[in-house]
Amino acid sequence: MGKGFAMRLMHLGYTVYSVGETITPAVDKGDIYFSISSSGESDNVVVNTKKAKNKDCHVIVVTSKEISTLAALAEKVLIVPGTTKGDDGEQTKSVQLLSSLFDQSLHIVLDALCLMLSYKNNISNSEATSKHW
Amino acid sequence: MGKGFAMRLMHLGYTVYSVGETITPAVDKGDIYFSISSSGESDNVVVNTKKAKNKDCHVIVVTSKEISTLAALAEKVLIVPGTTKGDDGEQTKSVQLLSSLFDQSLHIVLDALCLMLSYKNNISNSEATSKHW
Amino acid sequence: MGKGFAMRLMHLGYTVYSVGETITPAVDKGDIYFSISSSGESDNVVVNTKKAKNKDCHVIVVTSKEISTLAALAEKVLIVPGTTKGDDGEQTKSVQLLSSLFDQSLHIVLDALCLMLSYKNNISNSEATSKHW
Amino acid sequence: MGKGFAMRLMHLGYTVYSVGETITPAVDKGDIYFSISSSGESDNVVVNTKKAKNKDCHVIVVTSKEISTLAALAEKVLIVPGTTKGDDGEQTKSVQLLSSLFDQSLHIVLDALCLMLSYKNNISNSEATSKHW
Repeated sequence: MGKGFAMRLMHLGYTVYSVGETITPAVDKGDIYFSISSSGESDNVVVNTKKAKNKDCHVIVVTSKEISTLAALAEKVLIVPGTTKGDDGEQTKSVQLLSSLFDQSLHIVLDALCLMLSYKNNISNSEATSKHW
Repeated sequence: MGKGFAMRLMHLGYTVYSVGETITPAVDKGDIYFSISSSGESDNVVVNTKKAKNKDCHVIVVTSKEISTLAALAEKVLIVPGTTKGDDGEQTKSVQLLSSLFDQSLHIVLDALCLMLSYKNNISNSEATSKHW
Repeated sequence: MGKGFAMRLMHLGYTVYSVGETITPAVDKGDIYFSISSSGESDNVVVNTKKAKNKDCHVIVVTSKEISTLAALAEKVLIVPGTTKGDDGEQTKSVQLLSSLFDQSLHIVLDALCLMLSYKNNISNSEATSKHW
Repeated sequence: MGKGFAMRLMHLGYTVYSVGETITPAVDKGDIYFSISSSGESDNVVVNTKKAKNKDCHVIVVTSKEISTLAALAEKVLIVPGTTKGDDGEQTKSVQLLSSLFDQSLHIVLDALCLMLSYKNNISNSEATSKHW
């Protein structure tokens, strides 16, 4: 989901990178760092988010768990409800496996955010399309 | 979306590969080859699907365009309605940019397919979770 | 090899993208498009290079085959000798499998190019390191 | 370099996965886990290697630093000499930037390993080529 969101932001004219890809540079002071983890505990996401926080990035966390390692690192937290992979018993809000429900909710939330940005910045469909590989 | 679907199928116990990743082997006769393109005309998807068809794979195509190069190559076509990047005028069924609407519909359709497979093969959440990296 | 080269160019301060990654935008007139294929015939590389040529990019091709589809598309061709996967009989210049020899030669050639650029642009090691994720 | 090595092992008939790719399953007891880091301190590599060690994988580490966090986690360590990104002063053994020298040495070492495996397992070039996408 994070990669799709990064692509949409690129279509909208933002300078954006996805951690783990070839040409992603080091984060720098003042960058916005966007972390996604349904459980808020994914090891690699936590490690990279700490790195961003140490460089004085603005950390925004999207998670289903308000009480989590990742949420504690954030300047802003966006709670997207949904079942995540550790959930069982009463926490299970879905017949679907693992974090499927979270991923679906997240997809809609991030696309809604992109739609709002496209209105705000007055980006037309043809303008966004011209940026698509 | 295709990568998320491949990951879910792996969780469900299927042997699955995603084209373009490091350890994806050559396709072989009898393999099921799953192609996704909202327009049905994405150059790279078409090139790879032709390669799969020439090797006698069973080609399944997911697209919003019943009349398209990709659909013509398929043994089975799954039509997921939604706006795609070339659409304009009357074809535009969405206020969202590019293929956002298609991608959202596709996400739900593929996750529904995974849910049906999890019921059919009797895969529990803990079994699927144990396969997750 | 291409991805490593793209990363080094980023360290050197160039704006560079790798085709197939999330945030890679559409190519535009005047861009330099760098294509690598040992055989000069890799389907996907050829498709993408044609796309770049149609957009009036400056196409630079690196291949072991001077006579190839890819070389014919190029404004400049850089021949890196080495065995490639179709070679057999007299063409086989290596005991190694597939394109291993080409890949090794390519690695050294591209790193030498980066070293020359670092001298030309006067980039220090600490400057390059500060860009590394 | 690690991805190229994984691809060669796949060509040779081994079942291999690259961490961070879509269909990479959870590691399991008895798996061989191969970690590469020139400094032996790369955060993400260390986190993932600890995860593998906790699941009783056989951890093999390739690094230029015999004394490092990663080397301390390993069952076997393969030292590939070469400059790495933190090195300066006397440690700098190369005019090249960052870990270029390490990467080049590593490339040759891993390809030599693949060549030895191809002899040992009697894999012909055409057999390996048939597995290449």
